[in-house]
Amino acid sequence: METTDAQIMVAETKFYSTPPGEDFLLESGLTLKDLRIAYETYGKLNAERSNAVLLCHALSGDAHAAGYHKGDKKPGWWDPMVGPGKAFDTDKYYVICSNIIGGCKGSSGPNSINPSNGKPYGLSFPIVSVGDMVNAQKKLIEFLGIERLLCVSGGSMGGMQALDWAVRYPDIVESCIPVATTYKHSAQQIAFNEVGRQAIMADPAWNSGDYYGGEIPSRGLSVARMVGHITYMSSESMDQKFGRMIKEEKLGYGFTTEFEVEGYLRYRGDSFVKRFDANSYLYITKAMDHFDLQKDGKLYDVFKASRSRFLVITFSSDWLYPPVQLKEVVKALKMNGIDVTYCEISSNYGHDAFLLEFEVESKLIKFFLEKTFQKAGR
Amino acid sequence: METTDAQIMVAETKFYSTPPGEDFLLESGLTLKDLRIAYETYGKLNAERSNAVLLCHALSGDAHAAGYHKGDKKPGWWDPMVGPGKAFDTDKYYVICSNIIGGCKGSSGPNSINPSNGKPYGLSFPIVSVGDMVNAQKKLIEFLGIERLLCVSGGSMGGMQALDWAVRYPDIVESCIPVATTYKHSAQQIAFNEVGRQAIMADPAWNSGDYYGGEIPSRGLSVARMVGHITYMSSESMDQKFGRMIKEEKLGYGFTTEFEVEGYLRYRGDSFVKRFDANSYLYITKAMDHFDLQKDGKLYDVFKASRSRFLVITFSSDWLYPPVQLKEVVKALKMNGIDVTYCEISSNYGHDAFLLEFEVESKLIKFFLEKTFQKAGR
Repeated sequence: METTDAQIMVAETKFYSTPPGEDFLLESGLTLKDLRIAYETYGKLNAERSNAVLLCHALSGDAHAAGYHKGDKKPGWWDPMVGPGKAFDTDKYYVICSNIIGGCKGSSGPNSINPSNGKPYGLSFPIVSVGDMVNAQKKLIEFLGIERLLCVSGGSMGGMQALDWAVRYPDIVESCIPVATTYKHSAQQIAFNEVGRQAIMADPAWNSGDYYGGEIPSRGLSVARMVGHITYMSSESMDQKFGRMIKEEKLGYGFTTEFEVEGYLRYRGDSFVKRFDANSYLYITKAMDHFDLQKDGKLYDVFKASRSRFLVITFSSDWLYPPVQLKEVVKALKMNGIDVTYCEISSNYGHDAFLLEFEVESKLIKFFLEKTFQKAGR
Repeated sequence: METTDAQIMVAETKFYSTPPGEDFLLESGLTLKDLRIAYETYGKLNAERSNAVLLCHALSGDAHAAGYHKGDKKPGWWDPMVGPGKAFDTDKYYVICSNIIGGCKGSSGPNSINPSNGKPYGLSFPIVSVGDMVNAQKKLIEFLGIERLLCVSGGSMGGMQALDWAVRYPDIVESCIPVATTYKHSAQQIAFNEVGRQAIMADPAWNSGDYYGGEIPSRGLSVARMVGHITYMSSESMDQKFGRMIKEEKLGYGFTTEFEVEGYLRYRGDSFVKRFDANSYLYITKAMDHFDLQKDGKLYDVFKASRSRFLVITFSSDWLYPPVQLKEVVKALKMNGIDVTYCEISSNYGHDAFLLEFEVESKLIKFFLEKTFQKAGR
């Protein structure tokens, strides 16, 4: 699809705050005063309020899912999927995306100001869960006058939110498209997150989370991001992209960057530090690690009350969230007689595929959404 | 096999040093004065000097492959495989294991004293390669009066040395048993090592490698080890060992250890710091990353001059050194008409399997060695 001037979608981040005096109750039992949620919308809500689609972002994402912010050269994180005529067709649907609670892109998080003392929360920000992210989004859609969602979708941690939505609010969610995600974090998934957290907390600049206004724990956060990036790519795609290409000729005296892959990881680490808050990294990875739809019960029972249609998408080379995990969800849905389509997309890109394999993703989602919209009788 | 008092093998680490004035030439072209190699031997060299077996250790291993040091409760790293009647049968073979050059367990490395100034080398220690490790071992076996090796074997980086031996000294190596290893580091393998190095170098206590006698970069080295441990286990074995077991009941305020897997990784990281030198970690991982038998040529050509018999062992769930890499070696050997046996052992333990799947490993190696010994006409 060509992007002409006429097609460029200008996006703007807006903010929703809970009314004064209305505390936001968290799953931990604690409350947050003045919850603030950054969000964007694309397209128009129809008269029946039946065309709302909620997109949920991944660990390092934000509310800016599509279009361009004024003056920006890069569009939102799922831009090839959201816009006129695209998979999430803004000519038909009203698409919403919000920054998660605990994040650092405009919503309440550890870098927000604690109203009780006028200072950034840091570690005094309460622990949040994927359920809290979903409940905060529910506040937002209620504010927007929406009672039912035509679809909730997202990749990676966004997919966890989508699944949580379908389980938590079965009567609100018409359809659910979890992509490259899981129903509960495995020991290995927890372990990778824990290494990232340890890298951040090992940085003296982290200072128990109290660093705002001073030096930030950039080295620790950079290492955390590097670990992440390895898990986002497949071994094959790394070989194809970097192989053993040497950046510098001579043997690495002083341990400078020699291999292309080293330079790539360092670059990714360094650029992440400029746009992300280390404490948010701690809070969000903890929320992912605690995510467990199954808990002590059977996955079959989890979806008993579900009324949504499902399109479940995985990628063949995704070893961070391997297809086997979502296949368990598909099985549990099928055992409940729920309408579910499963597609494992053949791709070399690893976990990153959900942000790259737009052509296949778009077709799958476009037709699924159209059918859902028809079935809903509109 | 029962371990009775009579069977307990007492081991002792010995040291070899190059004669005064004899510099050790490295692949980089630099030289090292007074090369020192820590080593152990088990069993006796026969009159024909035809029963010598060299074992090569992995990244964090040492010369102590088998038996017990006086007063120790834990045996050497491959003890179930080395001893009377075991796979590497010390009633038949003379087994040698030495600490690699660049290491920190008695051989010359960055924590050795630089004779030119009487201070620890730190980063002034020259860069070493897997080839340098092999050449240092060659010095040692010459010193021990050995001209031919019945077998060279090792797992992980030990397997790289075994392969390097077979290619570098085809007329000396009767047989080669590479286990859970590769012929060249892939981009992903480099990437994981680079994260470990970055974690160490991000620790202010690292101080550009100049920390001996002061505070050591324990937090950075601990994070590096944690990354390593994730790659040594399979996702399945992590799930079986830890699952989502919670160590502490309540949600992790302050980000303390909650999940069993977090506690395990922190414990492993902390205990590693007590026994390993951070600079050695940098040097050894760099040597692994530079390991590339193929270089720009064909793998087929690499083994053209080889005269060894091969037993190649991989493990089904090893995703750090996946079987596909050694299968390439098997193919190249077969294309050269070389006698090679390949076995992929079905195991859930991931890369760690080479230190755990002793029963199958032992049987495979025992018979292979016996046959090699017979074929060699002794």
